[in-house]
Amino acid sequence: MTSHGDAPLGVFDSGLGGLTVVRALRRRCPAEDIVYLGDTARVPYGTRSPETVVRYALGCARVLIGRGVKAIVVACNTVSAVAIDMLRVELDLPVLGVILPGARAAVAASRGATIGVLGTAGTIASGAYPRAVASLSTRTEVAGQAAPLLVSLAEEGWLEGEVPRLVARRYLEPLIGAGARSIVLGCTHFPLLRAAIEAETASLAGGPLPIVDSASATAEEVASFLAERGLATSRSTPGGLSLLVTDLPKSFATVAARFLGEPVVADGAVRSSTQAGAAVRSPTQVGGDAAGRSSPFSAQGVDVEQIDL
Amino acid sequence: MTSHGDAPLGVFDSGLGGLTVVRALRRRCPAEDIVYLGDTARVPYGTRSPETVVRYALGCARVLIGRGVKAIVVACNTVSAVAIDMLRVELDLPVLGVILPGARAAVAASRGATIGVLGTAGTIASGAYPRAVASLSTRTEVAGQAAPLLVSLAEEGWLEGEVPRLVARRYLEPLIGAGARSIVLGCTHFPLLRAAIEAETASLAGGPLPIVDSASATAEEVASFLAERGLATSRSTPGGLSLLVTDLPKSFATVAARFLGEPVVADGAVRSSTQAGAAVRSPTQVGGDAAGRSSPFSAQGVDVEQIDL
Repeated sequence: MTSHGDAPLGVFDSGLGGLTVVRALRRRCPAEDIVYLGDTARVPYGTRSPETVVRYALGCARVLIGRGVKAIVVACNTVSAVAIDMLRVELDLPVLGVILPGARAAVAASRGATIGVLGTAGTIASGAYPRAVASLSTRTEVAGQAAPLLVSLAEEGWLEGEVPRLVARRYLEPLIGAGARSIVLGCTHFPLLRAAIEAETASLAGGPLPIVDSASATAEEVASFLAERGLATSRSTPGGLSLLVTDLPKSFATVAARFLGEPVVADGAVRSSTQAGAAVRSPTQVGGDAAGRSSPFSAQGVDVEQIDL
Repeated sequence: MTSHGDAPLGVFDSGLGGLTVVRALRRRCPAEDIVYLGDTARVPYGTRSPETVVRYALGCARVLIGRGVKAIVVACNTVSAVAIDMLRVELDLPVLGVILPGARAAVAASRGATIGVLGTAGTIASGAYPRAVASLSTRTEVAGQAAPLLVSLAEEGWLEGEVPRLVARRYLEPLIGAGARSIVLGCTHFPLLRAAIEAETASLAGGPLPIVDSASATAEEVASFLAERGLATSRSTPGGLSLLVTDLPKSFATVAARFLGEPVVADGAVRSSTQAGAAVRSPTQVGGDAAGRSSPFSAQGVDVEQIDL
């Protein structure tokens, strides 16, 4: 029997962008086991209505609960923006999002000046960043800008050159024009385009401005939360990572590795279960299964399993 | 009772891109009623695995059959590329796609020279265009290029200026380099970016090349098919258009109008049914329902209904 603290952390996102949060978590809390669910069959959530996002998010959270997680990290700005209150009402375990940590880091970095936020259409339309900032500092203004093409560029791995810079510039112009003196990467995809965003921000603002990465800020808050609640793992060996996806397109391994910063082998290590929850196993189990396929925390690195949702 | 020929045409796509096909159909067969289903809750299909695309496509087709359509037009290159054989096996009515009409028009335009195809990752990976061209002409080569960012640009309405041109250029370079002397717009989104694609093609090839729009080619083939089978409507009054969507994001009316080329009013005219098929009515019914909401073919233009899938 594993103790409650030794249960894995559940992390989910609409797709693979949330792996930038997993990357930060694995750096900050290296002993924690992590089960990540990427809803790759229904990505992106950022352009969908709030009702649809809530419905999809509840489905994802229930899969993770079926895997015995001790807490859920919503590694998606859109879900954190529009569905986190509903998740907290519906679910009987701690739910942490990325908006409040990002807002807290931005307030600290901006020192009272306006904060600029780049996000998906859904995140910006929700007003979640202005609300979070207002709860932390009454004098700080927030300017938001939906930046959907930055998501596409990150997914395609088109991270350098004239196009990412021109696209970033177009989205940054209204923010700098509104007086922003710090920029929040309010979508888990954007850390990949940090170089282009940083350069264009500096060019538009006449000098470098703080760039706030909500992934790192979230990993900090998760670590503090687990310590305070006595929920941190008692193990000191490196934690495992299990990756659940609802679709496995050809480019999966490349895109996942780009976001995670670790190699991901999609063939051989892939397991497919036709019913969500049909393959629930102890997340600390090690070794191959009867069919000779690799375990969820295989020696090769990251285990990948496809599920239906 | 309506005769079989007076039943509506069913058209579906992963999202709203297929409305470029509806636009061409309404020009070519103006008396036909059309029921369009856009699976906006699960768009885009172009980056998903073939298995997932087949599953989603069958769901869409069954909704249209529940609305009493006489034939189904798959207004999506990705679905036409990977799922049309399965749809024909599973469904008991005619199913027409966009690939074969596009390939036929390209073979006619290319006169034996290599054909270049721009499409989604799914369409290009499927090899559907090379197969379709090979069935029409044994001597014609096909070069394909996945162009995901063109999809994002079309959806955001970023159709002019340096970024669309640079993105188009990057995708066209390998095609022109492979000797392509005609370019197929192998995704229903791409007609919106035709100007940029045309200009960059001419610049790279040293002169204009034929640009083949599969939407127009498909409308031609649908008209011939209906006439040959005696399935064309007997009415001569303008046909109605009913729009079903699985999600209704804020930007819906703008994006739909851009693709359709007609105004779409999303508020007021919107009806929501929680079960697919719960609101099946005669598609030629005119007038408001008990709640005073507009009919599927309302006088204002396009009726919009949200369904679950």
